[in-house]
Amino acid sequence: MAMCTATAPWKQILLKALESNANTKHSSFFQLATIGSSGKPANRTVVFRGFQAGSDKIQINTDSRSHKIDDIKHCPFAEICWYFTDSWEQFRISGRIDVIDELDSDPVKLQQREKAWFTSSLKSRLQYLGPSPGLPCISEEPSQGSDLDPSTGPVGAFCLLVLDPDQVDYLNLKSNKRMTFTCKGSGNGEKCWISENINP
Amino acid sequence: MAMCTATAPWKQILLKALESNANTKHSSFFQLATIGSSGKPANRTVVFRGFQAGSDKIQINTDSRSHKIDDIKHCPFAEICWYFTDSWEQFRISGRIDVIDELDSDPVKLQQREKAWFTSSLKSRLQYLGPSPGLPCISEEPSQGSDLDPSTGPVGAFCLLVLDPDQVDYLNLKSNKRMTFTCKGSGNGEKCWISENINP
Repeated sequence: MAMCTATAPWKQILLKALESNANTKHSSFFQLATIGSSGKPANRTVVFRGFQAGSDKIQINTDSRSHKIDDIKHCPFAEICWYFTDSWEQFRISGRIDVIDELDSDPVKLQQREKAWFTSSLKSRLQYLGPSPGLPCISEEPSQGSDLDPSTGPVGAFCLLVLDPDQVDYLNLKSNKRMTFTCKGSGNGEKCWISENINP
Repeated sequence: MAMCTATAPWKQILLKALESNANTKHSSFFQLATIGSSGKPANRTVVFRGFQAGSDKIQINTDSRSHKIDDIKHCPFAEICWYFTDSWEQFRISGRIDVIDELDSDPVKLQQREKAWFTSSLKSRLQYLGPSPGLPCISEEPSQGSDLDPSTGPVGAFCLLVLDPDQVDYLNLKSNKRMTFTCKGSGNGEKCWISENINP
């Protein structure tokens, strides 16, 4: 049965899954797949940093020196696979990613980046002062714990990713139900979501 | 520090992780990223079905009617992201996938497929008798529980995927250590693994 709604119908299911899995620390972790510049798939665990205010866009913080930035600049499409280990629910969320780094020319986006920075813990922020992720370790010693003033704004390496979903595949392994949600752009720029029950 | 070994050095670390996370049911689940025929990434949770005997090749069972089969036939490269929620370890395993279905002409591969079938639970086997995964639900009723003789061999829809790793990225979030393992093919067809410590 297909029906069209303007608000994302999967968002409510996802918020409910987050609530019912809130007691497990890793419930905010999901896997983000991109395509590397070599044309091969890449896949890594990242942390859900909430929806962008008043939307169904998903926020992720990352280091501008990480490989995924090159991947996304080369091909902006990504798919999240989010499996909730307590409730046995899986969300596959496909969409286009917008990279917001310090050089962004849009003041609204720069403000979103700043907000994401201050919303992160001090420990998370400190990671962006460390050596380039993925490069060979030069020192055998762990890098010295740098100090960071809590009022200091986002450092250069801090990057906000915003995934704008256009397709969601929802699977509930307890009820053995599966649904797809497909976004059809309407003429006036508003989103319209079509949902359908499919075979698990 | 780079060094070359013939046996996969990451396999021991992975087996240890499996052991120390054995009390969580989902420790055998990982996310498999492929590239869809549309050129966009796809990502879903699948179940680890063990290493192929005497090798570092990773086995996955799947339905030959699922989208991932089209993906892999279009582009054989995939990346596994395997996060262990108890020990905070992540393995990103990149490689090429071999699809073994009922039409395979290699008798050794058909034997591997048969072995994978009989190693699965009866409940798992029954899934391959259900309606095509991902297609619209025609009936509101759940499909009738079919009977399956335990001695019946693999049904047509049963497919064995074998991923042959050539790159592994290991991250330990407790020790904050990260390593890469890269496979360099030697002249005689044997694998040679180079490991290196990299920045997390």
